[in-house]
This record gives sequence, structure tokens and C-alpha cells, in this order.
Amino acid sequence: MRSDTRRVITLLTDFGLSDPFVGIMKGVVLGINPDVALVDLCHGGQAYDATEAAFLLITSYRYFSPGTIHIAVVDPGVGGPRRPILVACGGHLFIGPDNGLLAPLAEKAGSQVRALTATRYFLQPVSATFHGRDLFAPVAGHLSLGVEPACFGKPIDDYVRFAVPRSALSGTSSIRGEILHIDRFGNLVTNIAHVDLERLTAGDSPAAYVVSVAGLEIPIVACYGQVAAAALGAVIGSADYLEIFANQGDASRLLGIGRGTEVVVGRKDATPSCF
Amino acid sequence: MRSDTRRVITLLTDFGLSDPFVGIMKGVVLGINPDVALVDLCHGGQAYDATEAAFLLITSYRYFSPGTIHIAVVDPGVGGPRRPILVACGGHLFIGPDNGLLAPLAEKAGSQVRALTATRYFLQPVSATFHGRDLFAPVAGHLSLGVEPACFGKPIDDYVRFAVPRSALSGTSSIRGEILHIDRFGNLVTNIAHVDLERLTAGDSPAAYVVSVAGLEIPIVACYGQVAAAALGAVIGSADYLEIFANQGDASRLLGIGRGTEVVVGRKDATPSCF
Amino acid sequence: MRSDTRRVITLLTDFGLSDPFVGIMKGVVLGINPDVALVDLCHGGQAYDATEAAFLLITSYRYFSPGTIHIAVVDPGVGGPRRPILVACGGHLFIGPDNGLLAPLAEKAGSQVRALTATRYFLQPVSATFHGRDLFAPVAGHLSLGVEPACFGKPIDDYVRFAVPRSALSGTSSIRGEILHIDRFGNLVTNIAHVDLERLTAGDSPAAYVVSVAGLEIPIVACYGQVAAAALGAVIGSADYLEIFANQGDASRLLGIGRGTEVVVGRKDATPSCF
Repeated sequence: MRSDTRRVITLLTDFGLSDPFVGIMKGVVLGINPDVALVDLCHGGQAYDATEAAFLLITSYRYFSPGTIHIAVVDPGVGGPRRPILVACGGHLFIGPDNGLLAPLAEKAGSQVRALTATRYFLQPVSATFHGRDLFAPVAGHLSLGVEPACFGKPIDDYVRFAVPRSALSGTSSIRGEILHIDRFGNLVTNIAHVDLERLTAGDSPAAYVVSVAGLEIPIVACYGQVAAAALGAVIGSADYLEIFANQGDASRLLGIGRGTEVVVGRKDATPSCF
Repeated sequence: MRSDTRRVITLLTDFGLSDPFVGIMKGVVLGINPDVALVDLCHGGQAYDATEAAFLLITSYRYFSPGTIHIAVVDPGVGGPRRPILVACGGHLFIGPDNGLLAPLAEKAGSQVRALTATRYFLQPVSATFHGRDLFAPVAGHLSLGVEPACFGKPIDDYVRFAVPRSALSGTSSIRGEILHIDRFGNLVTNIAHVDLERLTAGDSPAAYVVSVAGLEIPIVACYGQVAAAALGAVIGSADYLEIFANQGDASRLLGIGRGTEVVVGRKDATPSCF
Repeated sequence: MRSDTRRVITLLTDFGLSDPFVGIMKGVVLGINPDVALVDLCHGGQAYDATEAAFLLITSYRYFSPGTIHIAVVDPGVGGPRRPILVACGGHLFIGPDNGLLAPLAEKAGSQVRALTATRYFLQPVSATFHGRDLFAPVAGHLSLGVEPACFGKPIDDYVRFAVPRSALSGTSSIRGEILHIDRFGNLVTNIAHVDLERLTAGDSPAAYVVSVAGLEIPIVACYGQVAAAALGAVIGSADYLEIFANQGDASRLLGIGRGTEVVVGRKDATPSCF
């Protein structure tokens, strides 16, 4: 084994960690390629929720080296007609069900999508309930050994295009988005990207803008510590999306809001403000 | 290190992941053999419940390659007189307390059970509360380096025979079993094995049979998607046991039942059915 | 890769495992050194609680081999003025925020503390919210490749000295401490160290002493099984601190007490006792 050839395989599922599902998938991979490095991306999102999983995957994969293989299994349609697919995107390989989970990656310029049809790489018999084990894990194992994507199936163009909701400019002076993910700290991660916020502010200080959510106006700051303990703020989070936080607290619990809640960023009005 | 010699060690405990117990065990193993691949099987089952853990272990280990070493620690009697044992079964090695957790493996034809008595392989001093760290982890580490099972202790035959409850034929036309495990999705996994169901149906379509549980009759289908969203069905799950599910829902919450609940599979009566 | 050179990196955070934060940190490390062995110490402690994390770290790290690199990120001040530091202690290297989390290690005789200032080793741009990814993970990766600690910054002496609360002798016949951590089983781990208990009992049997907590007197025993099922006892736990347990039960739930509760160990009075 050479350092420069050790392959990394990540796993993102909705399986949780209290069952042996994720461990079993790793057993299958290691049975094919014992030298691979396996990394859990996360397994604790909302069960069956491919949208949230898609958001977590697109904001995470780029911290891995090109050549990494990502298995993503949030798969309520397992055993039914939905296809298993392989997406090559920016030097990374993604394997998962064709239910929209991989759509944001498939839609990037230069990406290639294949249907996984080469059953000789699957565990036999393929169960009706656990394609993570019988199909996605063994394909990842063989990919990590250097088997070419083309060996697993033909390119397709009609994959499911179920995208993560995008934020949108509303007039010229505000952006309308929504909460896509609540993290372990209760931070409310929106779909308002840093780049879109910069386009809105066009060189102005973000301090001239506020975030409106749940009837409140929340200041945009540069780091958590710029608001008092337990106070609310909004910050460009680590995924480069705007997120609402409570300093050393739990914004989700404090505001009593969750995924899907509308969030608007706009210019502060002319009334006095303590920001 | 050669690919074909990298050993895999799995860990199944009731330690959860919020404490450093599992991480510490891995530290001990890596201190002995830094090249081993460590895989978490699961750590989140019911505390102290060796029966559930035994079921998860026997339905999981076969997805790992022969030569894999499995550490299983659900061990309410730690520090007391119960012995630590090593079971060789089908090319796999299992280490854990002699409290029934490894009994289903020990009882297989060709298995060999040893008491772990060679204290020179243990961390010293051995604590009264954490044999996972002081005893099972170091034994696994040394086994992974190629130390022979015979070095750790003599064969025994009087291990604890506390088996996972088995389902049973009830007359000639039904099987009576119980719920052994509830997974992360709320699926109710029974102890009715696929092979036993096939013996019952004897070539008939499973659709001619129903699952009776909690006063309801539930159809047997081939995959989750064959019932409507949120509706109940029964399917041969990935562990090859019958499980009751709610499509994209949580059968355990829906039915309000848990482990130990009786489940009967029988022929549908002659009354009209919408199945 | 040689067995004797494979480096181990552990991770202790308050990030939980339902978000991809920990996985992303591993991706950054593996991008720098794909041969490293990554071990999760724990990620599920109380959010923002550096004291509990410090206790878990100092009672865990010694089960790893010297040469291990430990990343510890409980970091409510991320993005603010608090410094990132590197502590060399007993052959181990520790990386984390300078908020007291690493203070018990920094204060050991022979330890050396450095401020991490060499931005060329950081991911750029460094975010204001996720230094685990942008700063601590890449520094750990480079350390694991053999880059010397001196390359990352200069020694400092004014690190934050926020120590884990210590137990104290109260008169000559008792020790007063508090509950520092509640583990997954509901065991109440105190800050009364084994060595301090031995100093108190001075050769007497621990059975001559009792633990007073929440108005109850609890016997000190040698292992869980020495009290009846569900009964309370106190034992020297695996971290070498006194802990209060309920045999096969949950002492925290039973007693309705939590972190910070006072615990006193004293000689049993002369009144008859069933101990």
C-alpha cells in the first residue's frame, strides 16, 4: 500500500448508528478492498429525507480529496423501480439511489451519470430492503480497486432532478430563502449562499442588512462571539451558507422553528437600531 | 502491510458513542496492532441486553470476511465471576463475556469455545468495570497479530447456553414468533426466519399468508413500496427474518408495541380480503 | 507504510454525529495524510462544555500510544480572540482551543504549550465558525507527517488555566467532591480519584466508608455485582475515579441528580449497618 494510493470511501445514510447497518456496509467494502479508509459523513439526519441529505452531501464532499468515493443512501424507494446510479463529478465518485439525492452533483457542468446495471458486482441475492449492503457498498469497493465507472453501467441523462430548494432574489433589495438543516447546536442553516449574499450587498457592509425570520430581525455578524451569550445572530456558516444561531445556545429551540421556515435578508430600514 | 493480511476487528457494545469507552478500546487495539481496520458494528442497543446484541451479531458477522475478529461487550456481570471467552466459528473469531451473548455462535457445528485465562495478554491491572478495555481489546489486538487462539486459554464446553428465543411451528399451518429488535426506522424485526417461512408456505405464494400482531392482520409483500405510504406491511428483511414495517413511517410507533410482542404468521382465512 | 510508523489521530468534540462536521475533519486530515488511523474518542458530551470534555480527555488519552495526536474541539469562542494551541504532554500531542479544555494537560510537569500561529498550515480561508476543519484538522494532519511542533508556533506560558474542579479533603476523615460526568449507563462519575480515596482510607477497608449523596448513604464495593440488581453502590470506575452506579440500572435517573452535585466520602458512623 502506498500513501498516495489509499482510497477513501465516505458513507452518508439515514441509518443511524444504533443498528449494525453501517457496520455491515463497511464489512462488505473491506471484504473487497481491506486497505480502503472508511469515513462516516453522517447517519443521523431525518429518516427518508433525501433533500436534507443532498444538502449535507454537496456542502461536505469538497473537503475530501479528488478520487474519494461517496456512498449516499437515503432510499425510501429501495426494492422498487428506482435505479441505482453512479455520478462522476469534479474527480469525486458518488453512488446512491436515483431519487434526487445526487441530483445537485449530477447537474454540475462536466458531471457524468451512469445507471448501475452490472449485477456481477452486486452481492447475490440482492435483498429488497438493503441496497446499501448488496449494491452500493460492493460497487464502491470495486471502484476503490480501480475498476472503471464504465464497467458498472451506461451513461444516462434522465436521472431524477429533484433539487435542493434554492433561495431567490426578491426585488432588488432582498433574498428569500428557507431553513434547510438544523445542526446539533440548534443552528438554523439556510439555503442563502455566501455568494448570493455578497451579490445582494454589492460591497456594502453586511451590517447594513438584517435577517427576518419568525417575526424577528436578526443582525448579521462575523462570528458567534459578536452577540451576547444566548442572543441571536446570523453568520456565514462553515458550509458557506447563512445560518441563524444563538451564541452558546440553541436557536432552533429558542425560536421554535424548524426546516422549511422562510427566511428573508433585507436592508435595515431607516428606524434607529442598536445593531 | 499487504492488502491480503490487513485484519479487521469489529466492535459491538452497549456503550453508546457519547462516552469515550469505544474510542479507548480502539486505542488499546491500535497500541498492539496499528495496522488493523476497526469497524463499529453498533453500540446503541438497549443497555445490558445480551439477547438483542446476540441477535444483531449473528445476523451481521457473515458480511465480514473470514479471519475477522469480533469484540462483543454487553456485560452486566463485568467484574464478577462470569468468564471471558473466545469463540472460533466459521473462520471468524468472537470475544466477549460468557453470558449467552456468544452462545448462538458457540452452538454452531464446528465451533470451538475457549475460556480466556492467559492474563499476560491483559492490560494490568484489570479493572472491575471495563473488561472491554482491559481484556477483550488487548486479546483482539494480539489475535490480529497472529497469536493462536490456543495461547489464550483452554477449550471449554460448559459455556452459558442462553439462546435467542426461536420461533416455532404452531400446528401445521402457522408460525409463532416474537419481536426481537426494533431498528432505527421503527421496523419490528421478528425471530421468524425466511427459511422457516418458506417451510410453512411450502411453495405457496406468501401472499396467501398474513402476519397477525397487536390484533391486526398485515400482508406479506416483497418490498416496502408495495404498500401505500404509511401503511403496514411485512417483508423478509435484510437479516433474512420477517419484519413488520410502515412504508416511509415508523411501525413501532404506529402499533405502540415493542420487543417481546408475539407475532403469528398464518394462512389468510376464507373471508374476502383486499390484499 | 510500516506498522511502527502508522500514526493515530483521535477526535473529541461536542459536534455529535448527526452532522457531517466530524466526517469533514477526517476528510481534511486524510487529504494531508491518507495513512493515518482516525479514532473517535467521543462527540456527544454537553454542547459548549469544556470542563466535561477536559475530564473525558485526561482520563482517556493514556490508553493510546505515545505519538498519538489528539484533536479536542469544544469551542464556544470559535472565531473570536481565543487562541488555538498545541500541547505536548507525555509523548502525546494535543490540539484545541485555548479555553481551558487542554489546561489539565498543559499543567503537567514537562508539558510544553505553543500558540498555533503558522497560518500556512491552515485551510484558507479560515472560517469564523469551524476551526476544527480549517485549523485543528490540518495541523494534526501535518503533525502526523512528522512536521515538528516548533514549526506551528512559539511556546507560550499564559494559556487559560481553567481546571477541572478537584475534590478536597474535608477535615481528616472525609473527602468532598462533585459529579463531573454522567455516562451512558447513568453512572455518576465523581472527581474523587482512587489515589485520594486510598489516602483517606490509609489501609483500612473501603467497606468502612460510605458515599453520601442526595441524602443517601451508599456502600463502596469492588464491582457492580456486589449489590443487588437495581441497588445503588459506589465503585472505583474504569477512569480511576469513584463512581455511583445502580446495578444493571441507571443511577442518574434513580437519584434524579446530575453534574455538579456534591458527593462526600466518609467513615461509616457507629450505628449498626447492613453493609
